[in-house]
Amino acid sequence: MGLALDREALIAYLDEVFPQVRGEFGIDALAPMEITMRLKVREAHLRPGGTVSGPSMFALADVTVYALVLSMVGREALAVTTNCSIDFMRKPEAGRDLVATGRLLKLGRVLAVGDVLLHSDGSDKPVARASLTYSIPPAASQSSGAG
Amino acid sequence: MGLALDREALIAYLDEVFPQVRGEFGIDALAPMEITMRLKVREAHLRPGGTVSGPSMFALADVTVYALVLSMVGREALAVTTNCSIDFMRKPEAGRDLVATGRLLKLGRVLAVGDVLLHSDGSDKPVARASLTYSIPPAASQSSGAG
Amino acid sequence: MGLALDREALIAYLDEVFPQVRGEFGIDALAPMEITMRLKVREAHLRPGGTVSGPSMFALADVTVYALVLSMVGREALAVTTNCSIDFMRKPEAGRDLVATGRLLKLGRVLAVGDVLLHSDGSDKPVARASLTYSIPPAASQSSGAG
Amino acid sequence: MGLALDREALIAYLDEVFPQVRGEFGIDALAPMEITMRLKVREAHLRPGGTVSGPSMFALADVTVYALVLSMVGREALAVTTNCSIDFMRKPEAGRDLVATGRLLKLGRVLAVGDVLLHSDGSDKPVARASLTYSIPPAASQSSGAG
Repeated sequence: MGLALDREALIAYLDEVFPQVRGEFGIDALAPMEITMRLKVREAHLRPGGTVSGPSMFALADVTVYALVLSMVGREALAVTTNCSIDFMRKPEAGRDLVATGRLLKLGRVLAVGDVLLHSDGSDKPVARASLTYSIPPAASQSSGAG
Repeated sequence: MGLALDREALIAYLDEVFPQVRGEFGIDALAPMEITMRLKVREAHLRPGGTVSGPSMFALADVTVYALVLSMVGREALAVTTNCSIDFMRKPEAGRDLVATGRLLKLGRVLAVGDVLLHSDGSDKPVARASLTYSIPPAASQSSGAG
Repeated sequence: MGLALDREALIAYLDEVFPQVRGEFGIDALAPMEITMRLKVREAHLRPGGTVSGPSMFALADVTVYALVLSMVGREALAVTTNCSIDFMRKPEAGRDLVATGRLLKLGRVLAVGDVLLHSDGSDKPVARASLTYSIPPAASQSSGAG
Repeated sequence: MGLALDREALIAYLDEVFPQVRGEFGIDALAPMEITMRLKVREAHLRPGGTVSGPSMFALADVTVYALVLSMVGREALAVTTNCSIDFMRKPEAGRDLVATGRLLKLGRVLAVGDVLLHSDGSDKPVARASLTYSIPPAASQSSGAG
């Protein structure tokens, strides 16, 4: 199965639907069922000690698998996060971007499942792992979850 | 087991350790092993359509159980989020605060487990549920997870 | 919303669709969106030391919310477990049945979400908590998950 | 970090501590931080239609990461499952063993985190994914969770 949106089209779409976070996230690489994204860490993402906050890590994990789902199903579709399980394993390093490598494990008619590993840029030790499920409602319907 | 920190002491402590989010969260009620908190919803928490974002819901769930753990173990202790599983079930209502009711299910020597329901203020339908685990490292040690 | 299946009809249906576990689980109480079930603990459920095994606790949590979903949607419907997050918090007591109290938090058109607390019979300390999501495919379709 | 137990020593240890499931699980491959295990599917693991049951998939995921933790920390140590999040994505194929590939993402002083993919033998489509956390209590202490 090929990409419905390439990297440029995906960036344009994310900027359009999430103007609030424009510029926060970058897409390093995109291939069918695989993506690498980046949180461009800023003051607002930090906790005392310079470590990236839990909500910022959650946000990166969520947008990573969301973007991957959209890259496969295209911009007409909706995708709504229904579940996330996240393990925080190490402290992110201060002053580094956070890099997420995501893969899609299932792309069904109504549900998609992916998982993601988060690393501090330049390190190979994962700081967190997450798995996420998205509901893909028919394009014209109202969604009942939350993104 | 009684409270190690009452509501006022807990608010003061959260303001001290999380100055970045000062004023975002309120504590409506606190009792041993139970808490009600509130996200004072602002523009920065919203997604298109006026609904509260997933990362903002995660942040509320996380701070709710974190504050509850601290209220029981006191301000000398550390508590580091190690796992969160969250289900997004309905769209939050636009223009409403988000209210979280949390309870502590286990408060062990090294791990604490709690769960939380999120509602839009004035509604009794849960928009999300979450369960969270915190590691409670010895006070003097460095933590290895992420909060 | 009322019950589509009462306690007797639900027991009969579970015996019919899960003949492998007939007699292992009991239904103590059933009301709309709420259920209490019981694992009748036998040798096969135990680990050394007499404690109930993790897979047996998972099985009880899964059947509890599954039965609750079926009690609401009726026997024509399918329900397929898509996600379970479970926290093991204490050792179950040896020689006691395990009791599960479940509630349904969402009963949507395509997804249902419930959570459950497990106790040793006669104790009020939870040994585990779990949250589960079920996909409810249209009755005539083939399911793509696993129950 | 090398193996504390090689494949033969690990098999012997699992047979010793889990005599109830002797012969149910096989270890196909073991390397530092990586393992491949197998559920030798029998009648008792099946649901109507010949598909492997959810509790059997949970059991395989749990024993896979548990065995991997023990292979790294040795037989003197304890490891107690504290959390499992599992996604069921496809129906296992009837009449096939279930194969699990696990990796350890964190091996800390008190917590270990791993994840695992389950496939039907001979297929490359994952039927389930799971992430698990283990508490590693000091060898002489009593554990407070459940395995």
